Amino acid sequence: MGDQTLTFPRLEADKLEPHLPPRECSTPFVTLTFATSLDSALSLAPGTRTALSGPQSKAMTHYLRSRHDAICIGVGTAVADDPGLNCRIQGVGATQQPRPVVIDPNLRWQFTRQSKVLQLAKSGRGLAPFIITTTGTALSPEQQDLLEEHGGKYIALDRDAVTQRVQWRDILLALQSEGLHSLMVEGGGEVINSLLEPGANHLIDSVIVTIAPTWLGRGGVVVSPARRVDAHGHPIPAARLADTNWIPLGEDVVLCGRLAGSKET
Amino acid sequence: MGDQTLTFPRLEADKLEPHLPPRECSTPFVTLTFATSLDSALSLAPGTRTALSGPQSKAMTHYLRSRHDAICIGVGTAVADDPGLNCRIQGVGATQQPRPVVIDPNLRWQFTRQSKVLQLAKSGRGLAPFIITTTGTALSPEQQDLLEEHGGKYIALDRDAVTQRVQWRDILLALQSEGLHSLMVEGGGEVINSLLEPGANHLIDSVIVTIAPTWLGRGGVVVSPARRVDAHGHPIPAARLADTNWIPLGEDVVLCGRLAGSKET
Ligand SMILES: NC(=O)c1ccc[n+]([C@@H]2O[C@H](COP(=O)([O-])OP(=O)(O)OC[C@H]3O[C@@H](n4cnc5c(N)ncnc54)[C@H](OP(=O)(O)O)[C@@H]3O)[C@@H](O)[C@H]2O)c1
Ligand SMILES: NC(=O)c1ccc[n+]([C@@H]2O[C@H](COP(=O)([O-])OP(=O)(O)OC[C@H]3O[C@@H](n4cnc5c(N)ncnc54)[C@H](OP(=O)(O)O)[C@@H]3O)[C@@H](O)[C@H]2O)c1
Repeated sequence: MGDQTLTFPRLEADKLEPHLPPRECSTPFVTLTFATSLDSALSLAPGTRTALSGPQSKAMTHYLRSRHDAICIGVGTAVADDPGLNCRIQGVGATQQPRPVVIDPNLRWQFTRQSKVLQLAKSGRGLAPFIITTTGTALSPEQQDLLEEHGGKYIALDRDAVTQRVQWRDILLALQSEGLHSLMVEGGGEVINSLLEPGANHLIDSVIVTIAPTWLGRGGVVVSPARRVDAHGHPIPAARLADTNWIPLGEDVVLCGRLAGSKET
Repeated sequence: MGDQTLTFPRLEADKLEPHLPPRECSTPFVTLTFATSLDSALSLAPGTRTALSGPQSKAMTHYLRSRHDAICIGVGTAVADDPGLNCRIQGVGATQQPRPVVIDPNLRWQFTRQSKVLQLAKSGRGLAPFIITTTGTALSPEQQDLLEEHGGKYIALDRDAVTQRVQWRDILLALQSEGLHSLMVEGGGEVINSLLEPGANHLIDSVIVTIAPTWLGRGGVVVSPARRVDAHGHPIPAARLADTNWIPLGEDVVLCGRLAGSKET
């Protein structure tokens, strides 16, 4: 069932077009996209995969993947979901598959030959991941061989001296030099929240959020960026979307927009 | 500015009609309605009023008030916002104003002659509140006089023996015996979350949520019901809406629906 090809209607695709990367772009175009509940949860609990959005939204995600060179998740999602990270839209062949990018600074992802993404790469239905890790982290030669055998690789980046995190700008520059000119950031919670922070959110070109009419309840993995305060220490909204477009899709709604005050596209 | 009359277009009103109380109903019809950010926050912090939704959504709230006999908030909102709780839709006269209902079990609301809701009642532009409190709580004779002078009153209900809270069913029965046959529950966070809990959410007939394309950031007053678990202790979605209708309204979207599995309407 999870293997079937999908179709996404042209009518809906046309509505998304203004929010998608131009066919040619010089710096990586970043689309932030994910599905949440009404209470902004991506899943019921860390390490759980939760079916949230309906079949049309799923087809949309795969359509969006067909429109990006690369798709990005954090190691938390890789470990929790064993995701396929390929595009199953009908007619999208092996040469048009997006490159999976997994952010794994501490090499926590113990992928094997059985991991879905490697199986799909092996059978020509997807690409093996590029794993973003940090310089100085000891790679296991077995993991490295397994990854490279499937066409993937590790990319080691320096940690930021202050935050000790890999910086989004450095990730984008590294992907650009790999010839990847558009990136769809899919999750999970930590990845999305870090990208929405003031120091990074100017890198986002487009936001496409699916909202399902469900409350998951407290305790889930929640999208909510860190609090922002003004000069007097009073809280202010963390981020706002402009040029928004709400597209009902089955029982869900798809919100498209760009971050207000971030770079013009 | 806050005093101007509002208009809400017939076209939009017609879309809301299936989600509103019938003109006559025997048991109180309960509409849950509020505005949140994308991260499900009602306000930036407890005790803060946050402008979230646009002017059309504000007009919609006042239109909805015109379609209900009573509107309900918790004491947290009464204290934080000094709300007017009247209906400012053009053409809605003094005799058609909704009755404000404030849930204040411990008499924390220290309203005065200057409180907005009493000023509006005095000038015939709204009604004085019915305050739901608990039996045994000592009323101040001055507050009681002030309230009754404006046409309001206290209604004391028993606390539930187990939860020590006032039960929603008892509140609705009390309002029904006051001749109030429809109730719009507006907030804040605690009131909404308690109504969404399994023991109470069957009382909700209609849900109308406005979502603004903003992330307020962590630390706000959040709508997210208590976690639900299945027989094995695994988390399951707390509540889901059925028969949904997403209505774009300015920059916001309005989600209408009813709780799946709750009473049919
Ligand atoms: N509904 C949806 O659309 C959707 C989509 C994707 C995932 N999900 C769900 O989300 C959940 C997982 O989310 P999560 O928050 O636990 O994990 P996550 O965001 O996938 O991964 C978090 C980890 O990635 C690394 N990381 C992320 N951002 C980084 C940055 N800027 N710099 C350096 N390292 C960074 C960190 O690893 P270290 O701690 O090792 O440093 C961090 O712990 C799962 O339940 C999954 O099912 C839902
Ligand atoms: N965006 C919107 O649409 C919207 C609408 C309304 C309010 N708000 C915001 O919401 C915030 C206030 O929310 P809040 O959660 O602090 O307060 P709240 O929900 O307005 O009031 C909470 C209090 O009401 C009493 N209460 C509520 N439910 C009860 C129940 N089932 N049984 C008995 N007592 C109950 C309790 O009083 P005791 O603790 O004394 O028992 C409780 O502490 C404000 O910032 C306001 O601006 C936003």
